[in-house]
Amino acid sequence: MKYKLNDYNGVIIDPTSFSFEKADLEIAIKGFLLYMETEKKGLAWITLPIARCASVEQFVAHGFIFHSCLPESLTLVRKPQESTYVPFMPTHIVGAGAIVINQHNEILVVRDQGATSFNLPGGHVDPGERIQDSIVREVLEETGVEVSFDAILGFTTRHPYEFGKSNIHFICRLKPLTENINVIDTDEIAEAKWVSVESYLADEKNGLTNREIVSQIADSKGLTIADFQSNSGRFKKQEIFMAVEAKL
Amino acid sequence: MKYKLNDYNGVIIDPTSFSFEKADLEIAIKGFLLYMETEKKGLAWITLPIARCASVEQFVAHGFIFHSCLPESLTLVRKPQESTYVPFMPTHIVGAGAIVINQHNEILVVRDQGATSFNLPGGHVDPGERIQDSIVREVLEETGVEVSFDAILGFTTRHPYEFGKSNIHFICRLKPLTENINVIDTDEIAEAKWVSVESYLADEKNGLTNREIVSQIADSKGLTIADFQSNSGRFKKQEIFMAVEAKL
Repeated sequence: MKYKLNDYNGVIIDPTSFSFEKADLEIAIKGFLLYMETEKKGLAWITLPIARCASVEQFVAHGFIFHSCLPESLTLVRKPQESTYVPFMPTHIVGAGAIVINQHNEILVVRDQGATSFNLPGGHVDPGERIQDSIVREVLEETGVEVSFDAILGFTTRHPYEFGKSNIHFICRLKPLTENINVIDTDEIAEAKWVSVESYLADEKNGLTNREIVSQIADSKGLTIADFQSNSGRFKKQEIFMAVEAKL
Repeated sequence: MKYKLNDYNGVIIDPTSFSFEKADLEIAIKGFLLYMETEKKGLAWITLPIARCASVEQFVAHGFIFHSCLPESLTLVRKPQESTYVPFMPTHIVGAGAIVINQHNEILVVRDQGATSFNLPGGHVDPGERIQDSIVREVLEETGVEVSFDAILGFTTRHPYEFGKSNIHFICRLKPLTENINVIDTDEIAEAKWVSVESYLADEKNGLTNREIVSQIADSKGLTIADFQSNSGRFKKQEIFMAVEAKL
């Protein structure tokens, strides 16, 4: 087995460096665990491609537990003691909702298939997607309206959520660049329209949380995109949102 | 196999409702997939406890892929077509950093074990933990200082992060309730101290991003905890952070 060391005195096993034949793998895992003990290493990690899922059982039998996964790979981790802290387990699902108000003080709303009331456009942030790109994409898919990102006005958290994870939902304000309605994602969305903010707020069929959000924060400054001099190189961030109003 | 339907025309298999013996399970899965096809159901989900990981291979052989996991359970999903959208795959790791400034205009900073420069206190949000609770806990563990949550001043996102996931890092402002330094988490933290904001910003050994954050947003309003009338019942949110300054 080949492996590399990480920053936490942990060891990451290279899954291309050994045989998955059961007897061979048994010898390799035992040799690896002896090395871990002798060298006083901490956590051990292995990411198995889905084609190698038959070996999950063998690693688990030697004390590995689940850590994280992608659709076609599963990462297992082995802790030397119960108390060792395991960093970076993914815990959150992220989504965003859009407040888009045009120059006639109309807000862009959608009605889901099977629903009777109207909601703000929005959806989930895809893996590896920026929040600002995600919400621009969702508004286009659900309404046909092109928008530019303006600010994050707030967010909510919720748990327990599906599959034992937590949810973060960002409320974004966006500026409309076009006005024509053209629902692209017709599987999910039955109807999209512009409606006066006043009548949206007055209609009790619309969700109370959305009405509270629109009435209380639609005009707020919120967090806007910041461009930090330091944001470059290996640790470059995809997005920086900051409340900079105090110093402007 | 027993199962229940979810809101997305999907089917969640009850893992306590069938035999994991290989031949029995093969018959059960085939019968289940026939039902899915006949009834035109969409996604199928199964959450296997780690003690049943030997059966992962059998579900994968019938088209299931990895969806999400907790340390001791793995959720698999089966999509009928490549195009079906799979909601809720956990994608993000969440952390928080603290700006704590006392009445003498001193900022609370920590030096990690093995590091020479000082950083803001902070760390990862644990599974099921509120962000506001997480940062109060981290500051206490790393410095011994008790703090109360004030506002979220901004956040950054970064990807690709560890294990193909994304990272969200919230910048929080907290008010000190005590001043005595007492590092509890000595495995991670070598030293904590109060230092004048002026000298923290002037010391080029300290990270540029942190210095930009402290100099630009430490006094900002940011997003504060909001209490919405609608926040109750089944969909109650743990936290609502909003930029409400425009209407105050």
